[in-house]
Amino acid sequence: MPNPASPRPLLDLTADSVAITQAICDVPSVSGDETTLADLVVEALADAAHLEVIRDGDTVVARTNLGRERRVVIAGHLDTVPINDNLPTRFETIDGERYLRGRGTVDMKGGVAVQLKLALELSEPIVDLTWMWYDHEEVSAELNGLGRLARHRPDLFTGDFAILGEPSNGQVEGGCNGNLRFELRAYGLRAHSARSWVGDNAIHRLAPAIDRLAAYEAETIEVDGLAYREGLNAVGVTGGVAGNVIPDEAMLHVNYRFAPNRTVAEAIEFARAMFPEYELTVVDAAEGARPGLDAPLAQQFVRAVGAEARPKYGWTDVARFSALGIPAVNFGPGDPLKAHADDERVATDQVLSCERALRAWLTGAA
Amino acid sequence: MPNPASPRPLLDLTADSVAITQAICDVPSVSGDETTLADLVVEALADAAHLEVIRDGDTVVARTNLGRERRVVIAGHLDTVPINDNLPTRFETIDGERYLRGRGTVDMKGGVAVQLKLALELSEPIVDLTWMWYDHEEVSAELNGLGRLARHRPDLFTGDFAILGEPSNGQVEGGCNGNLRFELRAYGLRAHSARSWVGDNAIHRLAPAIDRLAAYEAETIEVDGLAYREGLNAVGVTGGVAGNVIPDEAMLHVNYRFAPNRTVAEAIEFARAMFPEYELTVVDAAEGARPGLDAPLAQQFVRAVGAEARPKYGWTDVARFSALGIPAVNFGPGDPLKAHADDERVATDQVLSCERALRAWLTGAA
Repeated sequence: MPNPASPRPLLDLTADSVAITQAICDVPSVSGDETTLADLVVEALADAAHLEVIRDGDTVVARTNLGRERRVVIAGHLDTVPINDNLPTRFETIDGERYLRGRGTVDMKGGVAVQLKLALELSEPIVDLTWMWYDHEEVSAELNGLGRLARHRPDLFTGDFAILGEPSNGQVEGGCNGNLRFELRAYGLRAHSARSWVGDNAIHRLAPAIDRLAAYEAETIEVDGLAYREGLNAVGVTGGVAGNVIPDEAMLHVNYRFAPNRTVAEAIEFARAMFPEYELTVVDAAEGARPGLDAPLAQQFVRAVGAEARPKYGWTDVARFSALGIPAVNFGPGDPLKAHADDERVATDQVLSCERALRAWLTGAA
Repeated sequence: MPNPASPRPLLDLTADSVAITQAICDVPSVSGDETTLADLVVEALADAAHLEVIRDGDTVVARTNLGRERRVVIAGHLDTVPINDNLPTRFETIDGERYLRGRGTVDMKGGVAVQLKLALELSEPIVDLTWMWYDHEEVSAELNGLGRLARHRPDLFTGDFAILGEPSNGQVEGGCNGNLRFELRAYGLRAHSARSWVGDNAIHRLAPAIDRLAAYEAETIEVDGLAYREGLNAVGVTGGVAGNVIPDEAMLHVNYRFAPNRTVAEAIEFARAMFPEYELTVVDAAEGARPGLDAPLAQQFVRAVGAEARPKYGWTDVARFSALGIPAVNFGPGDPLKAHADDERVATDQVLSCERALRAWLTGAA
């Protein structure tokens, strides 16, 4: 039975974006547990006459329908990786810079706070806006709330440009590398290790593959003016039956991060050509996304926020928009190297400057 | 409460050695569960006036004290590896050869049956005899019943020659290779695989070690006239944190089977010299045993049983006797390649010919 003496605190979106960041970080929302935060978001926007609010599971969409010539989608995920004794948030000052520290401050409630504040405030933006705050980004792809929304409501995925609020140090990061994981298997013949010449050692047969990986110099490939650095790495190796047995099977798990000028199919072809003598099993694959910075709105956005465009190395949901033909970039406060870190922390000035830059662009002031 | 209507069957050591093999195989005695069989052995020998019977746990010693000039130790283990739906035993004929099939028939109740029969029968052997049937051979070395007996009753380990009844196809197998297992560790720096150049891949750092193993040609070394074939092999490899992480540690598990002209210390020195750039941890080490075939009794035994002496590759308890200065060989029925196999089976003719050969030597008829 609810206790009327301690009602759930409402989310006040008229506060500044640092205060909003703190408020929404202090409502834990590890993947799978986003309902409370999604409820708060719906409540906070319910009275905004300029917004149509749509709920799908724990994903909340809010959009304007002002008949503008162009529409921009701005999205961020509500979930975080697990808390590791780093909530509630607290402020700290390091080398004169003020930070808000705690789980989610960087990835990515700082960006979400900026978006929520502007969603409520901007009743007359110069473009129509579709805001999307979604669940289950930090877990396996099939649970992703944005993916689910695209299946349930493909009609919502229309727009001329999309911005993901993923941490990018307040810069614009375009596109992302594709991601391929595959297993290479070598086979041999099992034998007692006291008579090893009777067997055929599968671990020894992995040597050429590991050699090739160790010697490989990953390329840097320019796509739409941005330089994407690739990576080809062993991320796991297993083999062995017992201390006295010549192993008949060994497996090398390889991760290939490839520039967005290649498709997944081309990346697989490349991998097969590089390791022709092994059994190759693809275990995960995600297309990359071209930066899309040749789109007029994208160029205007980069100029307006006064940022330099850079490539994004990690895979993000910009790829989903890219796949739907909507140019998309990452733009949010926070150092991506602090994402998922136990000392995750965002510089409060970065949150505020992102707020200012996005407001200026969306109101035509920039 | 015991049921007097179904008494435990006694072990009849006047039967032929094939029948005794069947009887003792059908009393399951997986390592740790040898008590019933040890009880039967003690009972079966209790009335033999020429034997002093000593019990230590589930190890049974029976010895003559006839004042002979020389003493021979003859030993065998009572335990087996786990049963895999291969008991009770049954006879089968393959290509005209009759076999007794089932767990323990080869490793090594065929040999034990021959020993038990002759222990009871030979009241006037030409040498004094110390028979030892022991527990826990098939598990880790610290449980080994022969090792425990050597700690409890070192006085029993005197003799001029020792015979282990391990399967050797009825031939004489001398000495054994030493056995060294060690782990090689490579270290790197963990990083997100989307920015692999920030890290240092520990799995890639294993490549030279696996290369070296794959390229290594194991030596064959002559010791006391027998050629020992060595082996140097990876028996395990592990590394990896997650599919998106550059691993900071990887481990290669290596097994070195070395000829008995080297000590464990020399084998370790060899390994360190071969893999100088890795952290090396010894996880298991056992000295080999020189064949000891230059001892007069050993030479006489080989001639008497009409066998050709061969090297033994697997480590056996002959090394314990060798370490105590007692020359020791393996001599028993059964093909060692069938030891531990699900279709373990011994040719009944081999059991009988071992019985005849051993009797002839011990009675001076050979």
